[in-house]
Amino acid sequence: MAVYTEVPDEDLAAFLAAYDVGEAVSFKGIAEGVENSNYLLVTTTDRFILTLYEKRVERGDLPFFLGLLEHLSARGLTCPQPVKARDGSVLKELCGRPAAMVTFLDGVWVRRPTPEHCAELGHALAALHEAGRGFPLKRPNALSVDGWLALAATARGRSDAVTPGLDALIAQELDHLAPAFAGLDLPSGVIHADLFPNNVFFLGDRLSGLIDFYFACDDAYAYDLAICLNAWCFDPDGGYDPAKGAALLAAYHAARPLSEAEIAAFPTLARGAAIRFLLTRLVDWLDTPPGAMVQKLDPLEYLAKLRFHQQAESVAAYGWTAP
Amino acid sequence: MAVYTEVPDEDLAAFLAAYDVGEAVSFKGIAEGVENSNYLLVTTTDRFILTLYEKRVERGDLPFFLGLLEHLSARGLTCPQPVKARDGSVLKELCGRPAAMVTFLDGVWVRRPTPEHCAELGHALAALHEAGRGFPLKRPNALSVDGWLALAATARGRSDAVTPGLDALIAQELDHLAPAFAGLDLPSGVIHADLFPNNVFFLGDRLSGLIDFYFACDDAYAYDLAICLNAWCFDPDGGYDPAKGAALLAAYHAARPLSEAEIAAFPTLARGAAIRFLLTRLVDWLDTPPGAMVQKLDPLEYLAKLRFHQQAESVAAYGWTAP
Repeated sequence: MAVYTEVPDEDLAAFLAAYDVGEAVSFKGIAEGVENSNYLLVTTTDRFILTLYEKRVERGDLPFFLGLLEHLSARGLTCPQPVKARDGSVLKELCGRPAAMVTFLDGVWVRRPTPEHCAELGHALAALHEAGRGFPLKRPNALSVDGWLALAATARGRSDAVTPGLDALIAQELDHLAPAFAGLDLPSGVIHADLFPNNVFFLGDRLSGLIDFYFACDDAYAYDLAICLNAWCFDPDGGYDPAKGAALLAAYHAARPLSEAEIAAFPTLARGAAIRFLLTRLVDWLDTPPGAMVQKLDPLEYLAKLRFHQQAESVAAYGWTAP
Repeated sequence: MAVYTEVPDEDLAAFLAAYDVGEAVSFKGIAEGVENSNYLLVTTTDRFILTLYEKRVERGDLPFFLGLLEHLSARGLTCPQPVKARDGSVLKELCGRPAAMVTFLDGVWVRRPTPEHCAELGHALAALHEAGRGFPLKRPNALSVDGWLALAATARGRSDAVTPGLDALIAQELDHLAPAFAGLDLPSGVIHADLFPNNVFFLGDRLSGLIDFYFACDDAYAYDLAICLNAWCFDPDGGYDPAKGAALLAAYHAARPLSEAEIAAFPTLARGAAIRFLLTRLVDWLDTPPGAMVQKLDPLEYLAKLRFHQQAESVAAYGWTAP
């Protein structure tokens, strides 16, 4: 939940004057996203999301993110579409921050996903991977192995305060994962890299759109699928739900068939996805100053997921085998 | 900024089924209000605000608040209108909390009010006081003198950590204000009691609606005006702006003429309003646990305002005299 920058009305009016969208009739900070300030803006012509990019987003990455949304929209994927100002640009400045407006997507995110939702997700994720082909800009995944090692170094010596033994567990896991990831050579391209339930909209039972591409980057497609499995296929009590996992994997595979190498690597990819969110949550947990307006997410949720993946010997552990 | 309760989609669908409003097409937590969880809900028929009342709102007060909104709407005041369920009720339960839906008001709140905005406010405040007449329910102001004394007792011995001398200043001020308020006998009725800029919407230069009546109560009308003067007529640097104050007072007086007693009491009322927000902010500041998802407001802003009012010998100190 996040509104870090209050936008004075004169500044908003001046900003909107550069666009052909009419005047503001409603402007409300929304309690979603933790990185940026997001406003739901209703004008005399339409509804938009106006985002002010705060310090956690690299300014140099914005052309990648906004260009990707244009690329994906043009290829029929339902995602927010950057709105062009009269001068053709999609990136402006507001209150001293880079700012952009995107189209508003109808839809509600699902707090308790079912296997049917996971099947919709699998299909949409494959469609996203296909639609991303040909996008000319590149962005390495800053939260892959090197990023994990850096985060682990930041947390070292402090993690045991969260739960005893965590320091050693992370070190051992990275000793295993770093060479295992280095040995992978899987089909890659643009991935979303953060496709949690709150970034996927549904209207009724049908998936209606994908949002929040601010972790998008180039990496293995199947790694994106492993992130989704971590985010969608465990129950609130922490248990893995094979019905959800099978639905996700089968729907993805039906739309973009997984190669043998991707299937063989899946438990490793799932461990990588688990350690990635364990580490970012852990460092946020340790470093967030008291009183900060950030919702801290529990790193231990991902520790439990990691332990599940450590037991998985093949993709069959997830309740699915390739047909 | 506040969303304390996540609403699972099945629970939302079940809740909406009791109303004649169609189905959800968008549901976003909004970062406004600090007491309750507020969602902007778009359905297939209209836009609404859905509020889940969290523990800081007394369940027994909800009929007063919701009934007042119905009463004021029926008398032409633009404020959120409670939506009736099919069974005629306006108060339901959602996720174990009392919950209600109100109509969505267009408008943008003004981050930097001008004298023109203050004049619009004065007119609307008088209209609110007139429209509230005849409302049959009563709610004493829990944040009047007795409430101040209770808050001061809570903070006693800890306030000096916020700024040296604050403990003694509060005690002295209450020694003065408690008998001064007891001696007042002013025209009273329903007041808003929290009409800060974020609760007042504008479309262009015209005031378009008032929201957030969850501090509304019975008290002196002129006290409500004094709360507005504190909230609207000081500059960001802390200085009092007589142009704003004069615009507010003149517009209010033109619509609902202030009596001589109200005018004579105004500096006392302004001190009361300042100590009220100083004390609630102070206790929030001292008692908010680290990491709580509450935006802490600076109590010292109201200490500076209180000091200004302590120097005011008559309403002329605010840049206005009765015509």
